[in-house]
Amino acid sequence: MPYHYADSKLKIFSLNSNYPLAQEIAEIMGVELGKSSVKHFSDGEIQISIEESIRGCDVFIVQSTSAPVNEHLMELLIMVDAVKRASARTVNVVIPYYGYARQDRKAKAREPITAKLVANLLETAGATRVIVLDLHAPQIQGFFDILIDHLMAVPLLSEYFNNKLVGEDIVVVSPDHGGVTRARKMAERLKAPIAIIDKRRPKPNVAEVMNIVGNVEGKVCILIDDIIDTAGTITIGANALMEAGAKDVYACCSHPVLSGPAIERIENSAIKELVVTNTIQLSEEKLSPKIKQLSVANLMADAISRVYENKSVSTLFD
Amino acid sequence: MPYHYADSKLKIFSLNSNYPLAQEIAEIMGVELGKSSVKHFSDGEIQISIEESIRGCDVFIVQSTSAPVNEHLMELLIMVDAVKRASARTVNVVIPYYGYARQDRKAKAREPITAKLVANLLETAGATRVIVLDLHAPQIQGFFDILIDHLMAVPLLSEYFNNKLVGEDIVVVSPDHGGVTRARKMAERLKAPIAIIDKRRPKPNVAEVMNIVGNVEGKVCILIDDIIDTAGTITIGANALMEAGAKDVYACCSHPVLSGPAIERIENSAIKELVVTNTIQLSEEKLSPKIKQLSVANLMADAISRVYENKSVSTLFD
Amino acid sequence: MPYHYADSKLKIFSLNSNYPLAQEIAEIMGVELGKSSVKHFSDGEIQISIEESIRGCDVFIVQSTSAPVNEHLMELLIMVDAVKRASARTVNVVIPYYGYARQDRKAKAREPITAKLVANLLETAGATRVIVLDLHAPQIQGFFDILIDHLMAVPLLSEYFNNKLVGEDIVVVSPDHGGVTRARKMAERLKAPIAIIDKRRPKPNVAEVMNIVGNVEGKVCILIDDIIDTAGTITIGANALMEAGAKDVYACCSHPVLSGPAIERIENSAIKELVVTNTIQLSEEKLSPKIKQLSVANLMADAISRVYENKSVSTLFD
Amino acid sequence: MPYHYADSKLKIFSLNSNYPLAQEIAEIMGVELGKSSVKHFSDGEIQISIEESIRGCDVFIVQSTSAPVNEHLMELLIMVDAVKRASARTVNVVIPYYGYARQDRKAKAREPITAKLVANLLETAGATRVIVLDLHAPQIQGFFDILIDHLMAVPLLSEYFNNKLVGEDIVVVSPDHGGVTRARKMAERLKAPIAIIDKRRPKPNVAEVMNIVGNVEGKVCILIDDIIDTAGTITIGANALMEAGAKDVYACCSHPVLSGPAIERIENSAIKELVVTNTIQLSEEKLSPKIKQLSVANLMADAISRVYENKSVSTLFD
Amino acid sequence: MPYHYADSKLKIFSLNSNYPLAQEIAEIMGVELGKSSVKHFSDGEIQISIEESIRGCDVFIVQSTSAPVNEHLMELLIMVDAVKRASARTVNVVIPYYGYARQDRKAKAREPITAKLVANLLETAGATRVIVLDLHAPQIQGFFDILIDHLMAVPLLSEYFNNKLVGEDIVVVSPDHGGVTRARKMAERLKAPIAIIDKRRPKPNVAEVMNIVGNVEGKVCILIDDIIDTAGTITIGANALMEAGAKDVYACCSHPVLSGPAIERIENSAIKELVVTNTIQLSEEKLSPKIKQLSVANLMADAISRVYENKSVSTLFD
Amino acid sequence: MPYHYADSKLKIFSLNSNYPLAQEIAEIMGVELGKSSVKHFSDGEIQISIEESIRGCDVFIVQSTSAPVNEHLMELLIMVDAVKRASARTVNVVIPYYGYARQDRKAKAREPITAKLVANLLETAGATRVIVLDLHAPQIQGFFDILIDHLMAVPLLSEYFNNKLVGEDIVVVSPDHGGVTRARKMAERLKAPIAIIDKRRPKPNVAEVMNIVGNVEGKVCILIDDIIDTAGTITIGANALMEAGAKDVYACCSHPVLSGPAIERIENSAIKELVVTNTIQLSEEKLSPKIKQLSVANLMADAISRVYENKSVSTLFD
Repeated sequence: MPYHYADSKLKIFSLNSNYPLAQEIAEIMGVELGKSSVKHFSDGEIQISIEESIRGCDVFIVQSTSAPVNEHLMELLIMVDAVKRASARTVNVVIPYYGYARQDRKAKAREPITAKLVANLLETAGATRVIVLDLHAPQIQGFFDILIDHLMAVPLLSEYFNNKLVGEDIVVVSPDHGGVTRARKMAERLKAPIAIIDKRRPKPNVAEVMNIVGNVEGKVCILIDDIIDTAGTITIGANALMEAGAKDVYACCSHPVLSGPAIERIENSAIKELVVTNTIQLSEEKLSPKIKQLSVANLMADAISRVYENKSVSTLFD
Repeated sequence: MPYHYADSKLKIFSLNSNYPLAQEIAEIMGVELGKSSVKHFSDGEIQISIEESIRGCDVFIVQSTSAPVNEHLMELLIMVDAVKRASARTVNVVIPYYGYARQDRKAKAREPITAKLVANLLETAGATRVIVLDLHAPQIQGFFDILIDHLMAVPLLSEYFNNKLVGEDIVVVSPDHGGVTRARKMAERLKAPIAIIDKRRPKPNVAEVMNIVGNVEGKVCILIDDIIDTAGTITIGANALMEAGAKDVYACCSHPVLSGPAIERIENSAIKELVVTNTIQLSEEKLSPKIKQLSVANLMADAISRVYENKSVSTLFD
Repeated sequence: MPYHYADSKLKIFSLNSNYPLAQEIAEIMGVELGKSSVKHFSDGEIQISIEESIRGCDVFIVQSTSAPVNEHLMELLIMVDAVKRASARTVNVVIPYYGYARQDRKAKAREPITAKLVANLLETAGATRVIVLDLHAPQIQGFFDILIDHLMAVPLLSEYFNNKLVGEDIVVVSPDHGGVTRARKMAERLKAPIAIIDKRRPKPNVAEVMNIVGNVEGKVCILIDDIIDTAGTITIGANALMEAGAKDVYACCSHPVLSGPAIERIENSAIKELVVTNTIQLSEEKLSPKIKQLSVANLMADAISRVYENKSVSTLFD
Repeated sequence: MPYHYADSKLKIFSLNSNYPLAQEIAEIMGVELGKSSVKHFSDGEIQISIEESIRGCDVFIVQSTSAPVNEHLMELLIMVDAVKRASARTVNVVIPYYGYARQDRKAKAREPITAKLVANLLETAGATRVIVLDLHAPQIQGFFDILIDHLMAVPLLSEYFNNKLVGEDIVVVSPDHGGVTRARKMAERLKAPIAIIDKRRPKPNVAEVMNIVGNVEGKVCILIDDIIDTAGTITIGANALMEAGAKDVYACCSHPVLSGPAIERIENSAIKELVVTNTIQLSEEKLSPKIKQLSVANLMADAISRVYENKSVSTLFD
Repeated sequence: MPYHYADSKLKIFSLNSNYPLAQEIAEIMGVELGKSSVKHFSDGEIQISIEESIRGCDVFIVQSTSAPVNEHLMELLIMVDAVKRASARTVNVVIPYYGYARQDRKAKAREPITAKLVANLLETAGATRVIVLDLHAPQIQGFFDILIDHLMAVPLLSEYFNNKLVGEDIVVVSPDHGGVTRARKMAERLKAPIAIIDKRRPKPNVAEVMNIVGNVEGKVCILIDDIIDTAGTITIGANALMEAGAKDVYACCSHPVLSGPAIERIENSAIKELVVTNTIQLSEEKLSPKIKQLSVANLMADAISRVYENKSVSTLFD
Repeated sequence: MPYHYADSKLKIFSLNSNYPLAQEIAEIMGVELGKSSVKHFSDGEIQISIEESIRGCDVFIVQSTSAPVNEHLMELLIMVDAVKRASARTVNVVIPYYGYARQDRKAKAREPITAKLVANLLETAGATRVIVLDLHAPQIQGFFDILIDHLMAVPLLSEYFNNKLVGEDIVVVSPDHGGVTRARKMAERLKAPIAIIDKRRPKPNVAEVMNIVGNVEGKVCILIDDIIDTAGTITIGANALMEAGAKDVYACCSHPVLSGPAIERIENSAIKELVVTNTIQLSEEKLSPKIKQLSVANLMADAISRVYENKSVSTLFD
């Protein structure tokens, strides 16, 4: 219990998406989670009430907008409204996993930019600050006019592999052309080179081929992505790496969405271990022995403490 | 097909909550529903795209925020964002049933006012007008700073009973003390008196009794509410009316939420017929033979036409 | 003098609508009213100046928007502007009687929603919180995006009758179908049943009749309303109750608007005593011996103290 | 009837401050004034309803915020709310005399800036454009983020004197040091020099003296101000000019507020004629034979027509 | 002159950053550029006036926010204010090169997000739509709540190389790990593979090495970036490609910023030809014979026409 | 070092327009200037980073928007964005000279109101308070909805002349008709009369003549203006005063813009001494021996201290 905020104006509330993480954060802070009730009426409408006075408090609401995303997002918006109307001094939303982040631009005509919409909705509801981790694109920070603190899991993931793969000849691999910068960041921490998997269709009506740009032969590959959702790209990539002569293939990501066929694909793939964080709570049936989950609770708790005490949050990454 | 808007700038889109009603409205307007796709990604995120140009158009999006309310609300917000970004001239949301309307005030400390939150969210997303029917409280109109047209089902319901109960000695009954004004409105159209069911606990630790305020003996009672959700109040009321000597008990409402035990309760109750509208689409298993559904499609279509042509909407109620 | 805020950052200012109440509140708080001057230029324009520094203070401005409502509302808006520009930390408007509250929805086509407009005007002027008492409709809370505390006079009025009418057989009566919920609340505190007066026109071109729904014979009736304005409804209702065999008729309300013929009607009516609060200052000529005025100053002072000290306001009603 | 807008989307409504001017404008436009009712309830609250459909129309509301200023301002704000909610296409407020304009800066500590507050209130209520005449300071244009058209009466007043004082040796006099620029503008149109009346206290505790800066001897003086309120400055100035050897003294202004002792002072002063416009309706008792009222109706009508037809308004002043 | 808008409500104004492009667009549209004057006062303040009526018009202002960026940005903001206040119907800003786009996230602690700030400033000034080309990150679209159309130069550049390099064995190269997606897009159009230049420091205190990820030997390389500023990365990359056995190296970008040593570096580099667009006007001294400038005027003109006529803009990219 | 804020939450940052003044203020406050870096990239884009934590601090940014005005204004806006995003408690901008202030109204058709635009831009960027000195028009205070403190240099200038010109027969002269109120204020402090220089063209096509309104013969004249820019008006006025028999001519202003031919004109004019403040930093070549610069640092420091400590700022002028 590194912190002792029990008698302070700092209040932490958990909603329903990731209660274990919120609980872990609260224990590190030395506080009980705030008393509230989040129920559903018979017709599915969310009913929230806060069961202790929070007037003048700095309230932190912990909620990932993971699946079921619309439920979790509406829970969060309604809770923000309740906290604001209950006269909190500040309404800080801690969103370890920010859903809808991949809808961050109009890729085609007449699409929404849902990641921006969500930012606007949070602001309208009354949030005064957001704390997030590894946004799909760092530009999403600019979708907010309210304050934002952006945490990173790369140090945590890198430290894990640094300890595990001592003495190995490592290459960090981006599973597609959009994630090369992320791979580069981990590569710097591991002092390793990078490679890229470049899916490409040689001619129309010819099957896509997996082209590996860079040298992986005989090396231990670490595939890195921010989100692993259906795990198609990452598992096909892992298999291609093995075919190209890789010694071992690890994979990692910040946000284990793991929807649909993901677990089955991972278990059937060449991936030796998939390292993820606990920004998203994994249900029982997703607890594959191949998956290792690292906790971001200390990181989150440090950030909350520093926000509350007006200390620099960026120093968390020095 | 009373209207012919096929080649106009008027576009009607349906989301997933009540496609048959939207389709019925479109047919009355003489148009095809706008081409759009509303899907879910594997992880549950909504993916919307609009598949025809709507630049400079007056777009009407038909969506009740009925159960699953959070899904339907997020569909609507994301669609509004997409329509706005696609350069529509106006973004009109047609919400036959406005969910969360019962959370329209702080009834206890530290509650949200979700009905206001939803109004703010719609405005933030980019809606320029809402068309609703029988808001739980008429004051919810004032929750919007954008334009609002408020339609009423009472004429439709009253006309039905006027035709059906010719010559009967009718009394309109409010199932609780909050709905007396609504009962009064129908009573005026039926030229009938009113009664009220007043639940009351005579002393602490004594069971609640149903006290009928007003005279119902030998009369045909019409219980009226705006929303029937779990149907507890209305069915207990119906039974109490029969015990008090009513000849027959009908019930009606604008919005058949009918969640949880509702259908079972209705079928087992003294209610002879429950008359509802189609603002909420009823699933197969709710299609009780006791339930009669009247369509609001003509009413909605008239309102949309009048909005589009800048004609008075209020005259619909003269 | 239960409170001692003389040397604090809490400042209370009174405008012109209800100086005695503001003075009473200030005395309970243990402070002098803030020094300010509210004058009119020769042409009627309001001239306000604040005559002490309020930088960084929590300022509470006490002003009912009672008649002359437009004068009093503009006084309030201009004062809020002055207080904001004078760098107060928070600008809290205490509005014991919130005028224009009855214009809270579009009842007919092309009407304003003035209660919402006033909420928007206060927000635009710079108010950061409002404290009100017994809004005409509780939904008006949702008209504000700024913080609102909603106080209730029902406990005060109920306690008065509980003491006065010990041992009597009481019935609480709503003077019309819109106020049944209010009557229900008082009835719960007095452990009494309710009745409703239902004005109704049996046929077109036939005089309205007063129909009493519920049993009042031989009982002491307490008519309750939130606002008594011209006193037509309440006095006709009182007379009807006596004709229906009531033993005695009392009346009460939170806000004694008492305009036009009100005093004359009350004095000539069957009402034995009319109990009101002092949210509205009664002019000399309205001080009828039939009218008993209870002070809300303690309630207001407690609310202000709790807001200032970040304590729960809702506990005032436990 | 230079214009013929009878069957157009242009609607002109009058409120209560200056019905004759609005009527005159409507006649020039060739339209009937819009049907609306502005009444007061018994307690003084304003009740507005618009009695014809204005959906999609360009509505112009004519209202000076002259005395009683708070009544007239609230009438305007409520009307704007009603017009906006009735789905007008644009809400244009025509304010021939903009009250509270003299409170346009903080002259002392802790004063409001009421002229800015009023601009914000109009915007919040929903006005989309304002048309004004001779704002007390031209910078008030910048108080609005909505569109503003600023008309001038100087051409009208100058033309009057040009016709009346043919062949005279004229000097245009500013009654105080703040109005010299205004005097300069009229002087240019009359091709005359200027003078200034400079009130000054030579030493503490010595009476103020009227110091005339510039040469007025033997000349016909025209005192010009934008507003004449209690007429103290202008009448003392006029007398001082006569004492300094002026041949005759005329006075003029755009806005005849004429409150308190104004009429008596003017009648007892050396002023030969006071020329004003009809931006403010003069009550019977202010119709002094010394006062000549010029109509701005043509100017206003031209401006409204040009706004409606998207033609340049500035050309009115070429 | 493919368009004929001379007598329409469409107005195109040019500011000072790229007059030739604006002129070219105007010619394609068949209109004269709008009459306006953009001068500087002696002290450097910008003085803008618009010299023709634009009431009710759809105004398009063409201005790249290229160097001197702050001058050009302030010109644009002031022009938008002027156009808005002159009662234009819509204020569309056409920004072929959007400066400050690279400051699109907080890369380090306590940095601004200037690209978002600029979006907010444009919105505050009164812009109602922006038309841009190749934003540094597509997420910047989400920085705007107003409408945005995002054009792309990749088709133009690809077509040029398709014609020029018929029969060659091409590889498209990203000069750094952040631009791989862009390279992928051109590669698809050229049906070519990709490579990446990965700068990397093998150990601390050891010089950075250029690591080419992918196969370039014997191939014609096309380096692609969105912006070429000081040309360091691109010229070092070009030389590294030649050292790695490339046959020829071409380079291209949408926005030729070309500041500081850029021209010298390009002329001294292995780059055979640098293909750019004219979103930024090149000064005389930058007209290197190695640089080929393609015009985006047709693309811009088509987009403006489609916006004006409410036709789909996305079809420009089918 | 009258203040000792070294260990407080008060932080003062300087941008590039007037570093010496900011440094002087910081010394008076007893603090070091905040660590920040304001650089330009090669292409001219401003790059700001703040190099110490300012979370929860009251930050004061000192920056005159003097020439190059657009550079200095953008520096300020970007810095405000950075300070806001770095979680400062308040963002106070201290603008000793507020550029673009003379564009404070539409003087002609289709002009911007740039002074208002700048106010809006500062608010949008995130400023929470501005501290300014001698705005060109006091009404500009009303352009801000955020807090504003308006300081005055007249006491400082008056005290200087009071000391220097003991026993002289003084007249304060306004160089044009728009500045008479300012002259009047200084005249009151010097217990002197005023005169006005009235430029006027007697007939079309005849040269303008300088008409001196008021008596200056044999007197020491002090010309006063708020801004001296190209110095045309003031030097022509000075010469005219000497021709009219003045004994000596001094000039003074708050803001020495002194652009273009200003220094040459002043040196060649009849002005004996020009007294200015240091709101604008004078470059070397403007340091004419005729110019005396008084420091506003104490005034600014007192204002900052009072804002920080929630003390009355207006008392600085008692």
